[in-house]
Amino acid sequence: MTTRWLTSDEQRAWRAYVAASQLLEDALDRQLQQEAGMPHLYYSILANLSEAPDRRLRMTDLAERTKITRSRLTYAVTRLEKDGAVRREGCPSDKRGSIAILTDEGMTLLERVAPGHVKTVRATLFDHLTAEQVGQLEEICAGVARALEGDDPQTTPDGVPWRRRSSGPCA
Amino acid sequence: MTTRWLTSDEQRAWRAYVAASQLLEDALDRQLQQEAGMPHLYYSILANLSEAPDRRLRMTDLAERTKITRSRLTYAVTRLEKDGAVRREGCPSDKRGSIAILTDEGMTLLERVAPGHVKTVRATLFDHLTAEQVGQLEEICAGVARALEGDDPQTTPDGVPWRRRSSGPCA
Repeated sequence: MTTRWLTSDEQRAWRAYVAASQLLEDALDRQLQQEAGMPHLYYSILANLSEAPDRRLRMTDLAERTKITRSRLTYAVTRLEKDGAVRREGCPSDKRGSIAILTDEGMTLLERVAPGHVKTVRATLFDHLTAEQVGQLEEICAGVARALEGDDPQTTPDGVPWRRRSSGPCA
Repeated sequence: MTTRWLTSDEQRAWRAYVAASQLLEDALDRQLQQEAGMPHLYYSILANLSEAPDRRLRMTDLAERTKITRSRLTYAVTRLEKDGAVRREGCPSDKRGSIAILTDEGMTLLERVAPGHVKTVRATLFDHLTAEQVGQLEEICAGVARALEGDDPQTTPDGVPWRRRSSGPCA
């Protein structure tokens, strides 16, 4: 089958996207590392738990919300457990399931770190967007995320990350 | 100073962006791992070298083009060297500099892998965007990348990744 190479418009958009997403993730990770010794992913885990009823979520649901594999989540939660920010409980209704709970200490940590994180999100992203672009970004990204979560074998031949146990050698 | 929390529009855009960028990177990494045993970053390194004059770039310039720290680049290039896809040479004009060169074997690998990668970029991103959205995405991302590369201490207190030697404990 002939390859449909990217058009020059798509090429430019793709390069700009790859550059911006790399730089954004780098800036977010650095700020959180400096302020709390944790990467952006760990912050997302705490933030997602803080919004759940009773600040608790099944590990499978937490993996789905953070869009990562369960093995990557398990690794991160183990570290957050050691820091006292999260604790784990067995799930009574499902032997294989396990529940992550945000501790009071974790909530205090999140509240301390959140203002600096939000300031960085503003300074790196929203300060450079018009209100119209905020809407465009949401529409573009929501469409892409929906398609990738839809388990269309064409787009995600091996399904979404949170249904896999591992993400391969480079996870 | 009072925190300017995200508005609900910004909140929605941010969550959609974080989800889409995680899922995209996961899909790209998986396809390239399966087809060539390398993550997306390694592909970008080979692609950038293939477009350079004589297929060679100083390591510092290659780090800038791939938007990563030099330590992360060194690690990746060492692995690509072992696979025979890249070789390194000292830089005659700068003792500290070193030059990465795409080998013929690396070029063959890139040519073999490119069609599958482009197909995945289409299936995960461009197939879900209108022509108008392609333009919007480019404008949004180019503006963000420009701001983050501008070394504004407000947005990037520690500068761009390629001027740092390391990206900290979680790189």
